[in-house]
Amino acid sequence: MTLSMYQAAIPPLMHSLSNLIGILQKGAAYAEAKKIEPEVLLSSRLFPDMFPLTRQIQITSDVARRGIARLADTEAPSIKDNESTFGELIARLQVTIKYLNDFQPEQIDGSETKSISLPVGQETLTFDGQSFLLYFILPNVYFHVTTAYDILRHCGVELGKRDYLGEPKG
Amino acid sequence: MTLSMYQAAIPPLMHSLSNLIGILQKGAAYAEAKKIEPEVLLSSRLFPDMFPLTRQIQITSDVARRGIARLADTEAPSIKDNESTFGELIARLQVTIKYLNDFQPEQIDGSETKSISLPVGQETLTFDGQSFLLYFILPNVYFHVTTAYDILRHCGVELGKRDYLGEPKG
Repeated sequence: MTLSMYQAAIPPLMHSLSNLIGILQKGAAYAEAKKIEPEVLLSSRLFPDMFPLTRQIQITSDVARRGIARLADTEAPSIKDNESTFGELIARLQVTIKYLNDFQPEQIDGSETKSISLPVGQETLTFDGQSFLLYFILPNVYFHVTTAYDILRHCGVELGKRDYLGEPKG
Repeated sequence: MTLSMYQAAIPPLMHSLSNLIGILQKGAAYAEAKKIEPEVLLSSRLFPDMFPLTRQIQITSDVARRGIARLADTEAPSIKDNESTFGELIARLQVTIKYLNDFQPEQIDGSETKSISLPVGQETLTFDGQSFLLYFILPNVYFHVTTAYDILRHCGVELGKRDYLGEPKG
């Protein structure tokens, strides 16, 4: 079987979001063990004008949900950015995984040449579907998952590459 | 045209390595402007037992080079891990980009079901080619590029998401 848009998008995104849940669970356990208020970790950031952990998770969810919706010519339900606990952020990721899981291959396959316009700040980026997946959705999701990992590592949470990559699939 | 293994692998990796060169150039310029020894940035890390910036770049190059070589059933030339300046790290990435660029689509396409064994620490991971690309090479490269970005951001270098994503391709 040759690679398809669905295969390149949906299972890897679900896998990465699932790994991110595990990373957050280790963060929550660390806060509890060290008697640190979870809010301290959730509001941690690597530099004053970078987004804190909570926002990294919200954006991960948004890029995955909205990105895939665009490939499938539908609109992702919005989610209020009001999470204030590890549990609520994990629940958001679970909702996101379920949303992704509900797509059928035929909704995503064949979207390689679909024209996609994306408002980003003041400008509008245009992609074809394949470029949108390969140069926007995937690197963007991995960016925010990695930065969430980096923030928690920087706070002392014991995480390793395997937490990020997850159990090997294949 | 439907998505191919070559299209999902080579151009996105070259694009990301090229973006990483731009990120390092901003790091080098920052060191010069602030009169910081470049070595201070190159040896920066987010936690004592994480790899410093230099090692993040070396690993990015290794995962991309060796990963693609395995998909193509060849062996990547090794590169000595002896870089000590921004310029040398950028040169390593340039060599890596050239190496990737020399692959022809027919060397990568059709590798979806190729069996790949990867020694990682004490264990051997096994993948098929498609899983190796989607669950190992791509997330791994994006992990180290993002962590390099995060280290420099944490050191105060002014970088934005566009430096990481690069000019949109589409």
